[in-house]
Amino acid sequence: MTAFGFDVLTTDGAARRGRVQTAHGSIETPAFMPVGTAATVKAMMPESVAATGAEILLGNTYHLMLRPGAERIGALGGLHKFMNWDKPILTDSGGFQVMSLSKLRKLDENGVTFRSHVDGSAHHLTPERSMEIQNHLDADITMAFDECTPFPAEHDVAASSMRLSMRWAKRSKDAFVPREGYGLFGIVQGSVYPDLRAESAAKLQEIGFDGYAIGGLAVGEGQEAMFETLEFTTPLLPTNRPRYLMGVGKPLDIVGAVLRGVDMFDCVMPTRSGRTAQAFTHRGTLNLRNARHAEDPRPMDEDCDCPACTHYSRAYLHHLIRCEEIQGAMLLTWHNLRFYQMLMARLRAAIAAGTLKQTAAVIEAELGRGDVEPL
Amino acid sequence: MTAFGFDVLTTDGAARRGRVQTAHGSIETPAFMPVGTAATVKAMMPESVAATGAEILLGNTYHLMLRPGAERIGALGGLHKFMNWDKPILTDSGGFQVMSLSKLRKLDENGVTFRSHVDGSAHHLTPERSMEIQNHLDADITMAFDECTPFPAEHDVAASSMRLSMRWAKRSKDAFVPREGYGLFGIVQGSVYPDLRAESAAKLQEIGFDGYAIGGLAVGEGQEAMFETLEFTTPLLPTNRPRYLMGVGKPLDIVGAVLRGVDMFDCVMPTRSGRTAQAFTHRGTLNLRNARHAEDPRPMDEDCDCPACTHYSRAYLHHLIRCEEIQGAMLLTWHNLRFYQMLMARLRAAIAAGTLKQTAAVIEAELGRGDVEPL
Repeated sequence: MTAFGFDVLTTDGAARRGRVQTAHGSIETPAFMPVGTAATVKAMMPESVAATGAEILLGNTYHLMLRPGAERIGALGGLHKFMNWDKPILTDSGGFQVMSLSKLRKLDENGVTFRSHVDGSAHHLTPERSMEIQNHLDADITMAFDECTPFPAEHDVAASSMRLSMRWAKRSKDAFVPREGYGLFGIVQGSVYPDLRAESAAKLQEIGFDGYAIGGLAVGEGQEAMFETLEFTTPLLPTNRPRYLMGVGKPLDIVGAVLRGVDMFDCVMPTRSGRTAQAFTHRGTLNLRNARHAEDPRPMDEDCDCPACTHYSRAYLHHLIRCEEIQGAMLLTWHNLRFYQMLMARLRAAIAAGTLKQTAAVIEAELGRGDVEPL
Repeated sequence: MTAFGFDVLTTDGAARRGRVQTAHGSIETPAFMPVGTAATVKAMMPESVAATGAEILLGNTYHLMLRPGAERIGALGGLHKFMNWDKPILTDSGGFQVMSLSKLRKLDENGVTFRSHVDGSAHHLTPERSMEIQNHLDADITMAFDECTPFPAEHDVAASSMRLSMRWAKRSKDAFVPREGYGLFGIVQGSVYPDLRAESAAKLQEIGFDGYAIGGLAVGEGQEAMFETLEFTTPLLPTNRPRYLMGVGKPLDIVGAVLRGVDMFDCVMPTRSGRTAQAFTHRGTLNLRNARHAEDPRPMDEDCDCPACTHYSRAYLHHLIRCEEIQGAMLLTWHNLRFYQMLMARLRAAIAAGTLKQTAAVIEAELGRGDVEPL
């Protein structure tokens, strides 16, 4: 069993090429984590997820505590065994999804009470319970329990929300059971306010975490505000710990965040888009439902090596989507996940070569080339 | 390119162990053909279908003529290339599904006019058009165009329906374009009436076909009537041509039909059941939606080598089904198709060993063992 750790292998401006070590293996960074909400990456077999190049998955504490239940997964040997994924898993703390999905929420100093969006049953989530759940799940990376500050938020609202999250971060650290190869990440809050982000980053480092996430972004503030916030936030974080931008994002969001020093990402975009006929390609996004693909013998993306692009025409994929066939979701999801992993590999290689800025410009030009309609 | 052909390798009572040769490869019989209605075996990648042991798929002329259109598939290189399946394909003639799915049907001597169940568009299907469509699809085995006699049918209704199908069989033969390695099958009709089945079988042999299907069964007559009809029908067919029982069936239907001399089968049961939480196992059928599986760490079927049974617990499969996750349909479909192929391999081995009757009795006992609730 390796100790949990992070090594920066190379830097290129603010960007870092690194490696996270966990109990279930290592992760090359910058890394993209596919989302496996309910103990499955939707429409994918786990061996296919691994074949796309993914080295770590994200699981959702909120969904798993409701169905099938954290204790049940624990009794069945943990999330890795349950879902047949033996590589690293990061679980979120449940805080974000309680706010966005549950009903009849009530938040106080102790935690959140809410009703399940599935069956209306009552639940209570606190920093201590979130740590317990993530321990049952056997997450390689546990996230501290926080309140995701809504956007927009006035300075005083953002401040008190952030300070509650910092008190919860301390309780999370105290409740976390340290185990060899397992890490706990704190989450920087403070909306788009530099002073609050600075206060949050300092407080988290005082508590001490194995990695630092940047929360409360990708919630409607727009790419420009997100990049600005990253620009003043990442320099506040220790250089020898991984930095994780939660819930981001589109390909160019990721490129911009890597340029600003972020190491880890997760987003439902490649999987959700795969179920709604949207494909990310090296010439921009394609809507495969569009009738103009009906007789097109070309592959979806000529620069992709995934099964969807090597074995099938756009005409076939269009046909599957029009007929609402499951294989359409399977193939497009596989492609999108492979596209994201190819993007990350390209960014890692560029950092190693010291050419990230040029590569970022090339990628930006490629994705706007046309051939294709906007998403 | 091999000539289309069929060899009987061994017999055991009425049962035969054989091999069909086609332009896209050979098929060991008795064989089960998974159904790939709309140019996809629902919820499966074609390489996974092949991994279950399937050597031939069935495609549906009715569905494919409506979406994406036979000419379009032809222009894209045929059905094998379109759906990435390079092994043999059998296509039905469209007759059965026009009767069961389309709207505003009008049948006359020439053929059937109908409206699409998808978009209400008007279509016309004749023996000549059915042959043309199946030629565009590049089916290794083309089925003659027939009317599937409803059940129950009075003798005179069954007789005139069967005689229309025989005139259409002749027109199908005349319109079929012979190609090396491609075969045309006739379809015996006549409901449950021995004299009509005999008349039909004789007429088809007078026309001359590469194989003989038994149609108009599995339409509500029940297993006993089906077996009785097979008992007096299969002896009417040439021994040196494959015999195909259309649309059958449950595992014990197949066992009984193999005992009575049938070589080929197709049915949506394994795939459709896979999307509705039903699993076929060596101890009978399981409904994985049932709450009693929620904490069960055991595999679905201990005697199965498919991914669903080797990598996952019943608890996990139950969880996927409760959450309506696509991976649930993917895993159960894979399992059911593998179960059917294991059944066929077992029947083939038993015929080769001359022990089919004993094996059939063992299978019957196994499937009724319990552990499990009825389907």
